[in-house]
Amino acid sequence: MNDKTVTRRRFMAQASVAGAALMMANPGSLFAAQEAARVRARGYAAFDAAGDLRPWEFERRPMGDDDIVIDVKYASICHSDIHQMRGHWGPQQYPQVPGHEIVGIVAAVGSNVTRFRVGDRAGVGCMVDSCMACDSCDHGEEQHCDNGGTLFTYGYPDKREPTGITQGGYSTSIVVRDHFAVRIPEHISLQEAAPLLCAGITTYSPLIQANLDIGDKVGVAGIGGLGHMAVKLAVAKGAEVVAFTTSPDKVEDILAFGAKDVVVVDGPRAFGKYRGRLDYMISTIPVQYDVAAYASTVRPRGHFTQVGMPEGFALNLSAIGLAMSRVNFNASLIGGMPETQEVVHFCADENVRPVIQVIPASQINQAWADVVAKKARYRYVIDAATF
Amino acid sequence: MNDKTVTRRRFMAQASVAGAALMMANPGSLFAAQEAARVRARGYAAFDAAGDLRPWEFERRPMGDDDIVIDVKYASICHSDIHQMRGHWGPQQYPQVPGHEIVGIVAAVGSNVTRFRVGDRAGVGCMVDSCMACDSCDHGEEQHCDNGGTLFTYGYPDKREPTGITQGGYSTSIVVRDHFAVRIPEHISLQEAAPLLCAGITTYSPLIQANLDIGDKVGVAGIGGLGHMAVKLAVAKGAEVVAFTTSPDKVEDILAFGAKDVVVVDGPRAFGKYRGRLDYMISTIPVQYDVAAYASTVRPRGHFTQVGMPEGFALNLSAIGLAMSRVNFNASLIGGMPETQEVVHFCADENVRPVIQVIPASQINQAWADVVAKKARYRYVIDAATF
Repeated sequence: MNDKTVTRRRFMAQASVAGAALMMANPGSLFAAQEAARVRARGYAAFDAAGDLRPWEFERRPMGDDDIVIDVKYASICHSDIHQMRGHWGPQQYPQVPGHEIVGIVAAVGSNVTRFRVGDRAGVGCMVDSCMACDSCDHGEEQHCDNGGTLFTYGYPDKREPTGITQGGYSTSIVVRDHFAVRIPEHISLQEAAPLLCAGITTYSPLIQANLDIGDKVGVAGIGGLGHMAVKLAVAKGAEVVAFTTSPDKVEDILAFGAKDVVVVDGPRAFGKYRGRLDYMISTIPVQYDVAAYASTVRPRGHFTQVGMPEGFALNLSAIGLAMSRVNFNASLIGGMPETQEVVHFCADENVRPVIQVIPASQINQAWADVVAKKARYRYVIDAATF
Repeated sequence: MNDKTVTRRRFMAQASVAGAALMMANPGSLFAAQEAARVRARGYAAFDAAGDLRPWEFERRPMGDDDIVIDVKYASICHSDIHQMRGHWGPQQYPQVPGHEIVGIVAAVGSNVTRFRVGDRAGVGCMVDSCMACDSCDHGEEQHCDNGGTLFTYGYPDKREPTGITQGGYSTSIVVRDHFAVRIPEHISLQEAAPLLCAGITTYSPLIQANLDIGDKVGVAGIGGLGHMAVKLAVAKGAEVVAFTTSPDKVEDILAFGAKDVVVVDGPRAFGKYRGRLDYMISTIPVQYDVAAYASTVRPRGHFTQVGMPEGFALNLSAIGLAMSRVNFNASLIGGMPETQEVVHFCADENVRPVIQVIPASQINQAWADVVAKKARYRYVIDAATF
């Protein structure tokens, strides 16, 4: 922890020096002074661990030379937003604006930015900065920055931010380093692109890392925002998908998404049908559950990836159950920026679309309750015009 | 569970039919009647979940045509004996004789047995039977019998046994199907061979499955009976071993076992030195611990194998920690019979020996207390002449 803090501090210090040098290179530039203005934003924030969201006006850091400003058009709701605002993953600083599935139109670009122009469609996911110099960053795994420099989209300490922490996408605008924004092509709607920035990449990345072959049997556990994308992505990649859900009323939908079979998990016997038969499984379940029971459906020496993150990040695992199944269990955290861009293009090109429900900001609290109650079908997308 | 019971019942039924057929083929044979005599044994048993062992006389099933009878010479103490007798892994039937690291001299062989002769040295490990017809059994993974037929050495229901359950090796003799006994070559002492039957195979099997290269960096967590064998086996296979222990007074021993470095785990910072640097790790820790912290020492996409089995088999795992390390976590259960024979030959040939302390049966309870208190150095071996 201390190492990370030191590294981040050093990184921040270097950034400041660079800024100062630039200021000296443009002495007295009014334009530079104008650029340095903080960006005003309206959004919905949590004010304590009760996690009830209310409107809030706040300021974001000034756009730097490597940054872009995005006028947010849509931000969608991820179960992680709820977990983090309610302190399930540790104490939080409030007010805090959640949201890491963000799409909009570029409103301004810094002087070094070449990838975006004003008016472009752009998206932001779960992270907004990293050291950009280490081996992981060099290899497109910025979420695993070796220097601990990964800056997540909301609630992470950032001295540049007037509120002291990063603030998320449930808001009218966002300032982000250009490398951490992706291009959204014209042939996908902005509202349908939003969920790709977390639900899409978080399921796409492990599916790609699993090196699956066409026709491999892929299990998907938990068919919510992430799970329904996992089903669609795996089907689009040529897998034979078996979905596992605790909601019998989702079966028809899931078959329509292209799954070959749906197992309604109503007890430990539910797993018998596929015992040892799947080549791979991805679990999006964001609460405590019997991991080894699900893993028992994977063939010996196959892999099982956890992407749902439960309260306290704690998963209880039966060591004997895992030993019996001989399955490799791992967990995956979003995906890097190149892969995030890739999933957006893949979905746009292959007509893979999340099932969404656009809501006004006033319905966020109800939508959160519905997500927790497993009632979402399948991703709520907030219209940013209503913030 | 029902499937397993049915399968086992069917297996038992078939065995009875085979026996009846044989009886009819040898009508009135006095010799057959003699063979059918139960085998009397003296041993040390637990009588309740307090797990205090006391002397006990009991009967074992008659030797069948595929069985051998072994006069036990030594039986060593595994932490699993303690866990199971005390009900940590579920309620037990008592009296129960523990012990699954068993060596001795063959005293009798069934009519179909060709692998052993009376007077041979033989060893028995954690299992004594399986269906021998399924894919897993065909491929030498009898511990994963697809028909649920794996019969573990003590405490498992077995209608053939007069006590209704299998009884372990803390005893003067054992009756076992020949396939589930291994040959003990002359160039290793019986007392040193005993711990190979569980501690040896349980660490050898995952080390082999990990497909390591010479010079790979292998971490071993928990340096007790299993862990000290893991260090010695990995060193003998050409790995560069880093050991992790909570006992500072074991450091000198561990370096003498051939480890390149020893990390004394006195807090979360202990793992920093090897963060992401090991190619593989095996953990023998048989209690709850911070798996993700240990796993953080393994390189991204490397593997980590749990062989220690804690109370209730439950391991608490940080999903985010595992996601950050990108490590594949799996668990392993002993090893199959061919691999068990292999580790005995490997250790005999390569002079890999457990560090043992031979004790009389009267010291078993004290030895168990020492094992729990991490005082064993490193395996207690009971002299069966003292039962």
